[in-house]
Amino acid sequence: MEKLYQPTHNEEDLLVPKHFSKWRRKLNEIIFGYHTLAGKVFDIVVLLLIFLSIVLIMLESVSFIVETHGSMLKNLEWVFTFLFTLEYLARLSSHPKPLKYALSFMGLVDLFSIIPTYLGIFITGSHSSLMVIRAFRLVRVFRILKLTRYIGGANAISKALWNSRYKIVVFLGYVMCVVVIVGTLLYVIEGGKNGFSSIPRSVYWAIVTITTVGYGDIAPQTILGQTLSSILMITGYAIIVVPTGFVTGELMKEKKLGRAQQCLRCKAVIEIEKANYCFVCGESLDN
Amino acid sequence: MEKLYQPTHNEEDLLVPKHFSKWRRKLNEIIFGYHTLAGKVFDIVVLLLIFLSIVLIMLESVSFIVETHGSMLKNLEWVFTFLFTLEYLARLSSHPKPLKYALSFMGLVDLFSIIPTYLGIFITGSHSSLMVIRAFRLVRVFRILKLTRYIGGANAISKALWNSRYKIVVFLGYVMCVVVIVGTLLYVIEGGKNGFSSIPRSVYWAIVTITTVGYGDIAPQTILGQTLSSILMITGYAIIVVPTGFVTGELMKEKKLGRAQQCLRCKAVIEIEKANYCFVCGESLDN
Amino acid sequence: MEKLYQPTHNEEDLLVPKHFSKWRRKLNEIIFGYHTLAGKVFDIVVLLLIFLSIVLIMLESVSFIVETHGSMLKNLEWVFTFLFTLEYLARLSSHPKPLKYALSFMGLVDLFSIIPTYLGIFITGSHSSLMVIRAFRLVRVFRILKLTRYIGGANAISKALWNSRYKIVVFLGYVMCVVVIVGTLLYVIEGGKNGFSSIPRSVYWAIVTITTVGYGDIAPQTILGQTLSSILMITGYAIIVVPTGFVTGELMKEKKLGRAQQCLRCKAVIEIEKANYCFVCGESLDN
Amino acid sequence: MEKLYQPTHNEEDLLVPKHFSKWRRKLNEIIFGYHTLAGKVFDIVVLLLIFLSIVLIMLESVSFIVETHGSMLKNLEWVFTFLFTLEYLARLSSHPKPLKYALSFMGLVDLFSIIPTYLGIFITGSHSSLMVIRAFRLVRVFRILKLTRYIGGANAISKALWNSRYKIVVFLGYVMCVVVIVGTLLYVIEGGKNGFSSIPRSVYWAIVTITTVGYGDIAPQTILGQTLSSILMITGYAIIVVPTGFVTGELMKEKKLGRAQQCLRCKAVIEIEKANYCFVCGESLDN
Repeated sequence: MEKLYQPTHNEEDLLVPKHFSKWRRKLNEIIFGYHTLAGKVFDIVVLLLIFLSIVLIMLESVSFIVETHGSMLKNLEWVFTFLFTLEYLARLSSHPKPLKYALSFMGLVDLFSIIPTYLGIFITGSHSSLMVIRAFRLVRVFRILKLTRYIGGANAISKALWNSRYKIVVFLGYVMCVVVIVGTLLYVIEGGKNGFSSIPRSVYWAIVTITTVGYGDIAPQTILGQTLSSILMITGYAIIVVPTGFVTGELMKEKKLGRAQQCLRCKAVIEIEKANYCFVCGESLDN
Repeated sequence: MEKLYQPTHNEEDLLVPKHFSKWRRKLNEIIFGYHTLAGKVFDIVVLLLIFLSIVLIMLESVSFIVETHGSMLKNLEWVFTFLFTLEYLARLSSHPKPLKYALSFMGLVDLFSIIPTYLGIFITGSHSSLMVIRAFRLVRVFRILKLTRYIGGANAISKALWNSRYKIVVFLGYVMCVVVIVGTLLYVIEGGKNGFSSIPRSVYWAIVTITTVGYGDIAPQTILGQTLSSILMITGYAIIVVPTGFVTGELMKEKKLGRAQQCLRCKAVIEIEKANYCFVCGESLDN
Repeated sequence: MEKLYQPTHNEEDLLVPKHFSKWRRKLNEIIFGYHTLAGKVFDIVVLLLIFLSIVLIMLESVSFIVETHGSMLKNLEWVFTFLFTLEYLARLSSHPKPLKYALSFMGLVDLFSIIPTYLGIFITGSHSSLMVIRAFRLVRVFRILKLTRYIGGANAISKALWNSRYKIVVFLGYVMCVVVIVGTLLYVIEGGKNGFSSIPRSVYWAIVTITTVGYGDIAPQTILGQTLSSILMITGYAIIVVPTGFVTGELMKEKKLGRAQQCLRCKAVIEIEKANYCFVCGESLDN
Repeated sequence: MEKLYQPTHNEEDLLVPKHFSKWRRKLNEIIFGYHTLAGKVFDIVVLLLIFLSIVLIMLESVSFIVETHGSMLKNLEWVFTFLFTLEYLARLSSHPKPLKYALSFMGLVDLFSIIPTYLGIFITGSHSSLMVIRAFRLVRVFRILKLTRYIGGANAISKALWNSRYKIVVFLGYVMCVVVIVGTLLYVIEGGKNGFSSIPRSVYWAIVTITTVGYGDIAPQTILGQTLSSILMITGYAIIVVPTGFVTGELMKEKKLGRAQQCLRCKAVIEIEKANYCFVCGESLDN
């Protein structure tokens, strides 16, 4: 029954080497595959653990929870780290090329999600920089996104975004120019007051304004400043349509494409790829 | 004239049982039907009462109105509760399957919209939790939305949203990852100051920012924090196009369909209105 | 040369009565017509006067300008009122049905734009309520929008908006329900503190949030409140696509419509209204 | 090898005069051309210098950096000014018509980007007005945008924006009317308090609100004011679709065109790629 242990679909589409023992093949199928029930359950359990460990990291930053349940959180942290360490070792041992996995992006993320807790033993004091690295555990959630290949549209969107990458870069370039010029003008107009204390801060204000976020921590108070920022807002309002147009346009193109056929008898253009017969005159399209 | 009392269209498309008396059939037609004049008038009166009772709940929360017109508001509340109780009993008695109605979502909403006032007699003090339950009366407004089936587009929109549900979930998943990572980074960068007192609060800030709401109660003050949040804003600005693309794309697909025909020979659905022949098997569609 | 004085296009498409004297016909053509040079010049001059008078109203509200140039502003106000009075009398005298004009929406706007200054002589003190009525002068600017009928797209947009009116109403209905329910919940959760002092104010906050305006004068401070408002924001973010879909969909339909023709020889569907010949087989389409 | 020095593509498509020496032709090709390697490298170096000099201007406005690295920044400023002066002189000397270049928009921008530093020697005190002129250096970045002509979509977007210019103007006209009327109303309703101190400021608030920026420095506090601004927000929310519709519509039109053919007999432009016959005169398009 050797065939049973041959993983049907393997993450990096690597063939499991022949010298792999039966349990290692099985492990590979569970960990890297996602077509068997065991593989799916493993994925879901790992995802759940990631979510829970992220919630744990969040709770550790809330002072009143740390005061009351501090020791419990620490113990839980060690439980999660232990489980993730086990998972990491299992991935290393069952991967056809362990070093390639260890140096891949996802392999490094997996490693960085367990290191901080171990480092915490030696390093005391400022806990927060380790917290960020641990928060990168969330990147591991993207592992689930390999499932999105089964959801038709995700690819279409990615493709549309990719096809309009030049346009988006040019668009962002224009936005940057506008933002720097308006920010500098406002810095001069407001005379360094009302929060416009330097050009970088004024540019930050311009970004906050053009994206319609509008915190209000920095806001123009002079008549000229308010007039200029009004123009910036209305422009930004009009600008919002530009990237929408790019991506929608690309998506439409995507939709329409298909391979069109032409009927040899009546010359009608049939835009349905799967058509066998001309829907105008009934002629066969087998050509 | 038995036929007259047969409701033309009945809400849950249930047939009124034969043992129902004449007045019960009539009541069923008025309350659950919406094709007769009486049924329409009943719907509009109920809607108006719901609106007025919601306004009443709102006014009860405004302290200066309670001080001056407190007793009048209480009396009005009892009037509304009495009317809604009557309506609930009428629905119960005229429904072919009273228990099924009572346990349906709308039935429970109808019940919960009258209970709080009665409970108010026994429970004194904290009035506010009952207020929320009473506010759910507004859910009853959705009853009117059964009328929207006559407005062509509502279904198209619902269908488009439903068809793009996987994409929207994946999209929200991406947004959540971005928001948690940026929130954690900002918590570390701002060092727990300027309102970034914990990771959950920082994630809340990131959501407020990426959705361009921007309250400004929490706002980065450090140079690094402002730079990172600028990137988040511009990204969020570009991201806004993604779900627009999903739904617009779905709607376009919907629009194109037109009146579909079905081939009598091969049962294929031909979505081109002007087709003369089935493009799958070549059968004539002249029927 | 009677024909020359016959206005080519008259605003309300009313024929000028025969008993009108030559100068009255000429006046009608200049004031209500917009196809002769004189008519265009008149329209532009009136528009300019409206803009200037609006600027004047604005300046009158700025305290430091009133202190320095108060008497000049008052004199200018009388000049504008005199000119608008002249225009009103000219419109009255040259309109085929003066009473119909006087009672039309635009006629009333014209009247209300001159009355406040005259009333100002008798009424002293609170100047501000008269200021609003004067500000309605701006409505007169819409007069120019009759020119937009020559700009192709304006009609298409109006038509698209009109065609999607039911959908927009239903959409706003949904938004109102969400806003009232979330507002009430937040009022209870925040316990009437942090600006959520009454349900109407909380609903106002919910509207400020769902539309992504986000003033920040009212903002949730409790964990539960911030969680709920995060959900509201992300939902609102997703909701923004819905009306876009409506109107874009309608606009697309508009674009595609045209009257399609079918070729009698080859049965090809020609979607170009102006086509004389089938572009597939060259057959004449004169049928 | 004369031909080698003939610039393949020259910025203003001017032919380099015959009396130009070999090195002047070469210089022209490097500076104004962008098809040779040297021309590309020159463009990139200039762009980099512009970016760095903008960063320098920004840093000069941050007080704590000026205190610590003030003299270094001043020296760097002179380095950049020297390099830009060299570039300006090179452009002047290699341009076929130096005066035409000097008076062109880009020529003036190039000049204004070096003048302020020289002026700084004579003028002491207020440095900030010179800072704005120097910030206009950023406009020179647009020079790179000549490269965007190779990126297909940029033109399509510009064309779509240009084609919908009338509609956008009409749309902005509507927005201005709404903003002035609502602003005036709020000024009267709030009675000049809560930040609504004059009509221009209230109009500024209305713009901040309708564009969903929402700083919160000015926010209505009265019940009537909050109700009216709620309506403004929801309207603004619905209005956001209007310009999106314009531009998307234009872009779609653009997309549909495909490769157009021209009829040899009647000169009509046939925008359908697969047409065999002119649909105006029936002439065959097989050419």
